[in-house]
Amino acid sequence: MTQPAQPLTDLTPDQLAERLTALRADYAALQAKGLKLDLTRGKPGADQLDLSDGLLGLPTSTKDRAGTDVRNYGGLDGLVELREIFADLLGVDVAQVVAGGNSSLTMMYQVVSWLLSHGGPDSPRPWSQEETVKFICPVPGYDRHFTMLAELGIEMVTVPMHADGPDVPAVRALVEDPSVKGMWLVPTYANPTGAVCSTEVAAELMAMPTAAPDFRILWDNAYAVHHLTDVETKSADALALASASGHPNRPIMFASTSKITFAGAGVAVIAASPENKEWYLKRLSFASIGPDKINQLRHVEFFGDADGVRAHMRKHRDLIAPKFAAVQDALTSRLDGLGIATWSKPTGGYFVDLDVLDGTATRVVQLAKEAGIALTPAGSAFPHGNDPDDRNIRLAPTFPVLAEVEAAMAGVAVCAELAATEKLAGA
Amino acid sequence: MTQPAQPLTDLTPDQLAERLTALRADYAALQAKGLKLDLTRGKPGADQLDLSDGLLGLPTSTKDRAGTDVRNYGGLDGLVELREIFADLLGVDVAQVVAGGNSSLTMMYQVVSWLLSHGGPDSPRPWSQEETVKFICPVPGYDRHFTMLAELGIEMVTVPMHADGPDVPAVRALVEDPSVKGMWLVPTYANPTGAVCSTEVAAELMAMPTAAPDFRILWDNAYAVHHLTDVETKSADALALASASGHPNRPIMFASTSKITFAGAGVAVIAASPENKEWYLKRLSFASIGPDKINQLRHVEFFGDADGVRAHMRKHRDLIAPKFAAVQDALTSRLDGLGIATWSKPTGGYFVDLDVLDGTATRVVQLAKEAGIALTPAGSAFPHGNDPDDRNIRLAPTFPVLAEVEAAMAGVAVCAELAATEKLAGA
Repeated sequence: MTQPAQPLTDLTPDQLAERLTALRADYAALQAKGLKLDLTRGKPGADQLDLSDGLLGLPTSTKDRAGTDVRNYGGLDGLVELREIFADLLGVDVAQVVAGGNSSLTMMYQVVSWLLSHGGPDSPRPWSQEETVKFICPVPGYDRHFTMLAELGIEMVTVPMHADGPDVPAVRALVEDPSVKGMWLVPTYANPTGAVCSTEVAAELMAMPTAAPDFRILWDNAYAVHHLTDVETKSADALALASASGHPNRPIMFASTSKITFAGAGVAVIAASPENKEWYLKRLSFASIGPDKINQLRHVEFFGDADGVRAHMRKHRDLIAPKFAAVQDALTSRLDGLGIATWSKPTGGYFVDLDVLDGTATRVVQLAKEAGIALTPAGSAFPHGNDPDDRNIRLAPTFPVLAEVEAAMAGVAVCAELAATEKLAGA
Repeated sequence: MTQPAQPLTDLTPDQLAERLTALRADYAALQAKGLKLDLTRGKPGADQLDLSDGLLGLPTSTKDRAGTDVRNYGGLDGLVELREIFADLLGVDVAQVVAGGNSSLTMMYQVVSWLLSHGGPDSPRPWSQEETVKFICPVPGYDRHFTMLAELGIEMVTVPMHADGPDVPAVRALVEDPSVKGMWLVPTYANPTGAVCSTEVAAELMAMPTAAPDFRILWDNAYAVHHLTDVETKSADALALASASGHPNRPIMFASTSKITFAGAGVAVIAASPENKEWYLKRLSFASIGPDKINQLRHVEFFGDADGVRAHMRKHRDLIAPKFAAVQDALTSRLDGLGIATWSKPTGGYFVDLDVLDGTATRVVQLAKEAGIALTPAGSAFPHGNDPDDRNIRLAPTFPVLAEVEAAMAGVAVCAELAATEKLAGA
């Protein structure tokens, strides 16, 4: 099929009807392929996991640098040698880092629930004693951030996510409300847009006045070192910016090796001000005797140092960059110039963010499903799954093999064009 | 020094004064040894940890029985093959078991905090919305159980712990109060008394009427398979007893490999009714994508099956039973017949529970400390660290090597006798 020269919105009703017939034939052909493909979650591919199989025979030692037996209890803040690696990668001081278990999501949940049950170091009272607690959610964003807040009874207010970070004027307006207590942010290669928060935006977010004295920015730097090109973008220095502007306790930083080594069997960290760190460790001491130090040492031996992580990430890049290129190719070759879709061109992270014609995202996901292509539910990048424009779809191309990504994305492009044409034709 | 034939309480003031002089000489000699010994925590010894060094080269496979790649995300309830092992060891159905991360303490904290934030399946409302929430704490008990409740704002009411479990009439009286929502219990080889809850007591606890419809018994079976003799006591079948008496959701069972393989790098489980399990996994899904399945598979490969665990535990027994015998020897040879101390003779678990003369436990711990022997703070086995009789001391003999246990316990016995004699002599 050749590409039309003009946007679909310029077509006459007859042209649209003709196009719809052709697209339905394309879609029938797609269904006939009997695909069974999954682009739903940001999971590493098996070839990426193979990169870390060296972990399986480690550690060779059972003592940390200080000579402590890592097979026994203790060490709530984690191995210093692992904390050093993350401090280097995140551009923070090792004293600010706590190394924990296998999930940064769990650490985020701990922080939010302890803010509710106890309040932070600078809270007038536990958040649960406030009439209402609201969080600012840049959208589109990470679905698990939003479902966590809903589970914990926190209201969500949205701001647009731009290429350089959240919309600062919108954020500034919202934080005049003292019930707005916090904000999510994936600063680097955001889920799902790929946006990278600039130092300018980060500086404004850390310095801005807020009505709540204990306003928190949960800085989920899940993709800090997950570059897709040889430009290895550095994350904004959130802790230093916050400290310099007099709000040291505002940001709490999270990261993990979930998409570096084994997803679910890695190590996670937080980094924060001394007061926040002490607060976190105090709360944690009632729930844990210490993290899995064997797994921490396993990771230390595997990487050696932060440069070992960086070298390892380049191997990931080599495996997944072709998949991201395939997504771009499929979308461009079918949809470019039609005026019915825009999509991100991420330079890192795990997702491509596709905006289809307003009001058709749910239909696109349904069409894809009926052709054997599983996509994240439409709206999942919005609080309560509610995309007010019904246009946003998150694509996760890392898990399937390259040929599957190509097949799935060619199908998604057909579905996007078919749904748009149906809508424009009033079919 | 020869043992006196009669109890210290029978001595005349002159005899006491003479005895005190001799004991002060003994204590000075003890101090002169310059000991630096630690009996504070129930930590495995290095030789016990060596038993599990085979874990370090595992797993050899990265697929579970179903063929799922354990290196990737998912599987919130844990590997079925690991759940089978624990189901066998705990005498429950595999469908009732969730296998999690490295800490049963963390799972207990989750359960209590989610009961507070959301309530259980049969709660009229979240516990946090009750005026007061109280827990029954058998004493002496596990200090971390009590500090967790204090952290979470739950009031504690105590009942005596007998050799066959908690005092049932005292428990029955307390549960008439609807604000009494739960109870701790270490059913087998209790921390610190070594008591084993009988099936009769367990049956009464599971069947008794309670004013709170959502009363919970947190059944912390940390020492289920930690036998010190060749009598391998079976734990009471809490889930079946509860179900049979119409209160299936009352018990939630916890266990872990913390004192089976590596402390802090093992795996923990809960076992509960279908409704409780669904409730737990639902809450957990907002905080975790899944447990460390690699470590779970590592443990499955290491043990093979439940009998593999039992065989492994006999190796632990062989290493630590002599240490427990040394504790008995030291206490018996110095204190037997003096009428100033009683102590447990545990057949499993990790502790010996020492009751010294009323009002002298704090002094004994202080004397020991000044002689270089670290003991758990007096009162730590009671809520808020408050032993009303100031007589209870928890001894943890597993971590030091045998010669250190002998030296430390000989010292403890001197301190106990000195403190008692000081008190009786009014010195």
